[in-house]
Amino acid sequence: MTQGTEMSETLILHEYSQSGNCYKIRLTAALLGLALERREYDIQKGETRTPDFLAHVNPNGRIPVLQVGDRFIPESNAACFYLADGTALVPEDRFDRADMLRWMFFEQYNHEPNVATLRFWLAFVGEDRLSDLQRALLPGKREAGEAALRLMDEHLAGRSFLVGDRLSLADIALYAYTHVAGEGGFDLARYPAVTAWLERVAARRGYRGMDA
Amino acid sequence: MTQGTEMSETLILHEYSQSGNCYKIRLTAALLGLALERREYDIQKGETRTPDFLAHVNPNGRIPVLQVGDRFIPESNAACFYLADGTALVPEDRFDRADMLRWMFFEQYNHEPNVATLRFWLAFVGEDRLSDLQRALLPGKREAGEAALRLMDEHLAGRSFLVGDRLSLADIALYAYTHVAGEGGFDLARYPAVTAWLERVAARRGYRGMDA
Repeated sequence: MTQGTEMSETLILHEYSQSGNCYKIRLTAALLGLALERREYDIQKGETRTPDFLAHVNPNGRIPVLQVGDRFIPESNAACFYLADGTALVPEDRFDRADMLRWMFFEQYNHEPNVATLRFWLAFVGEDRLSDLQRALLPGKREAGEAALRLMDEHLAGRSFLVGDRLSLADIALYAYTHVAGEGGFDLARYPAVTAWLERVAARRGYRGMDA
Repeated sequence: MTQGTEMSETLILHEYSQSGNCYKIRLTAALLGLALERREYDIQKGETRTPDFLAHVNPNGRIPVLQVGDRFIPESNAACFYLADGTALVPEDRFDRADMLRWMFFEQYNHEPNVATLRFWLAFVGEDRLSDLQRALLPGKREAGEAALRLMDEHLAGRSFLVGDRLSLADIALYAYTHVAGEGGFDLARYPAVTAWLERVAARRGYRGMDA
């Protein structure tokens, strides 16, 4: 397997900078000391659904997409894996490597559709502009988001990081939307182990904030 | 990294056998010639939400969970990765490996919540037993499920498999719920490249059906 962080091809991030899914990739690159060019799209104006975007960047009409030379990797966690493959951000141990992916799939299935969606609906769309269906989904998403944060809190009690005793992509993937969960109306003070873990990630050498 | 499929610890799959997420893991094991013990839970009777299950198998209250000796891997695609890590089902090329994960994250984010959920609601719960909220979600999930199948169909036109020219975990992950999408009311005849690809996967040596 290719080792280390050496990249011979230009890396371009197609993104909406306030998306946690895009931030994950920037944070991974920052921690690895990799340079990324950035291209911004306004998702609320449909800029990722144009025929050109669908034909050349991502047929799924979504950001982020990591461009590697003339090839494209959609899906935030797959893009992070590409950047970090062969580095200390991906555990060498077979079980730990699968366990890292376990948290990354949990993030996309149980955390993002609830914690990130509430943030987007409440802080970006605005509660008064939600559809009736979105409004009907709010209580269930609130409950599922709290359950995801509680599960993380119980797991992190007595642990420094999600997998083994080292920072991995699991932490980066879950950091992205957890650290701004307050914008979705979640009270992080209820999750002390999560709060301590957020500080641990942010203290990391090379760390870069969402607005940087 | 650990190479090959040698496993020194007992593998136990905690599952609900009709779940495509569980079937993925059995199919991966079958293609690799690995033996799995199986423990069945009735998800409609809440057997994965008991205090014992939450404390010892998966705090997230979900199956499948792959038990490796006395350790547990929730999340179907992470469990598949554990079994296949270091084998030909995970591409050696760095870009292809990330691209495989791209399809696996697409599966959990865009395909499973639509294609699998409609199958569960219509074929297992029963349309007349759906809640008003579930009923309100049906049209959106139908549309998103069709979009996921269409995207796969366009990608597979002229290709044998999803990534590179070889079978990988991406194919196994997406095969699981696609091959029974008809039970959710999806008409696979509309997706000829998908249909040909399903046959290609099923013709594989070592293949094992969902009911086997």
